[in-house]
Amino acid sequence: MKWCRYEGPTGPAYGLVEGDTVFELAHAPYETVTRTGKSHALASLKLLPPVVPGNFYAAGRNYVSHVHWANDYHRMTLSVPTQADIGYRSPNALTGSGSDIVVPRNSTGSIEFEGEIVAVVGRKAKHLTEANALDCICGYTLGNDLSERAYQKSDSTLWRAKNIDTFKPMGPFVVNGIDPMAQTIGVRVNGKTVSEYNTADMIFSIAHYIARMTEFVTLHPGDVIWMGCDGPTLPALQTGDLVEVVNDSLGVLANRVTKEI
Amino acid sequence: MKWCRYEGPTGPAYGLVEGDTVFELAHAPYETVTRTGKSHALASLKLLPPVVPGNFYAAGRNYVSHVHWANDYHRMTLSVPTQADIGYRSPNALTGSGSDIVVPRNSTGSIEFEGEIVAVVGRKAKHLTEANALDCICGYTLGNDLSERAYQKSDSTLWRAKNIDTFKPMGPFVVNGIDPMAQTIGVRVNGKTVSEYNTADMIFSIAHYIARMTEFVTLHPGDVIWMGCDGPTLPALQTGDLVEVVNDSLGVLANRVTKEI
Repeated sequence: MKWCRYEGPTGPAYGLVEGDTVFELAHAPYETVTRTGKSHALASLKLLPPVVPGNFYAAGRNYVSHVHWANDYHRMTLSVPTQADIGYRSPNALTGSGSDIVVPRNSTGSIEFEGEIVAVVGRKAKHLTEANALDCICGYTLGNDLSERAYQKSDSTLWRAKNIDTFKPMGPFVVNGIDPMAQTIGVRVNGKTVSEYNTADMIFSIAHYIARMTEFVTLHPGDVIWMGCDGPTLPALQTGDLVEVVNDSLGVLANRVTKEI
Repeated sequence: MKWCRYEGPTGPAYGLVEGDTVFELAHAPYETVTRTGKSHALASLKLLPPVVPGNFYAAGRNYVSHVHWANDYHRMTLSVPTQADIGYRSPNALTGSGSDIVVPRNSTGSIEFEGEIVAVVGRKAKHLTEANALDCICGYTLGNDLSERAYQKSDSTLWRAKNIDTFKPMGPFVVNGIDPMAQTIGVRVNGKTVSEYNTADMIFSIAHYIARMTEFVTLHPGDVIWMGCDGPTLPALQTGDLVEVVNDSLGVLANRVTKEI
């Protein structure tokens, strides 16, 4: 199953994606799939982030070579994690595929992509084991965990480096029936592939994260868990660039970089 | 105006609080106040967190003497902030006044209260100035930013120290018409006052935070901004303790400490 969320004529709506057509749903398809009878051409729709997460989790550092690269290139002092401590992002920053990334007026830092696989929670869950952890996940999507590296150095939190408006593109669809631990995630800038890695290289698996998280926190439908990225996150994005996170099953999350006027 | 959110017979509902009576509302009173005609005795209700925040902001360190105390007592290495960088908490951790705080089975650390004033956003806002920042706030409530200090030391993020289920009591009401920068916030444990400070001692005012935040992020109705606490946060809470955050205008946020079975 593949579904999306979009700006409908009477407000945001969920829709089932079949080929080039989107069949409107009466509600998010976590428990049941209820078609309203309306449909739209996919290409005609403004896509929104496919869910509105109540809780926005992010693994951050979850690939060894990304940590080493960040330390070497950006002179950061990140350690390779020895336990799966989840981090956070903020929903205000989410934007859908096809929407612009808006770099703030006063930004002076390097704007860098981080293309990631995202697990979408479909049912309330606590105290899962690694064996049954993925049962609470209704599908996967793509995320671009954009970072502004000057803010990341100057601020005591990641609020401006990672959580400003439009800095968290997510989408285009939620797709189930894939193996999330064997996906090639690519990033293209202006059509040229600049990053490619496999989710098999995660330090801690999605199931491991979920089992550990649910020892302490309840997951809720719509919550998202961004799993981090591998390798370098360059070239830095420039105004006008089209950045795309791509995966054969999950589609293309495409956003244009603009500067705040 | 004073309002709350509670577990109604058909699910969560918002209500206007007048004396000992709660008048049910058709929706959250951000723009208009629409009574349904139903009412309840306040004492009969199970209160919920008064809002469901889309974004949960927390100032963290925003009082000088709290920073010094944490460094001296807990041997932390916190600096006094030189700019208002906002932090985050996670909505899964919210619980209402009257509900239990549940300490995880494997917790070994000190469980400490942090009684705070919380600003509740009532309308969408960006690019505010300090002069008009508070126009977007529909009222104030109380928060208890509970911390588990062993997790705070062992983990690379604050996820278990501050964001586990029930560790963010918030409520009991949202109240407007007060000066948020001249409030005495007290904390009682088992009826005895153990902390008392004035919000006038914030390093950065609520208006300053909001002006700075909205240069980069859009605020939305229901978003909350927890403003930090002053002074020591002891004695550590024990199973069975009743911890109350109190303010003359905002009421009493009361929660019992229990241990997960």
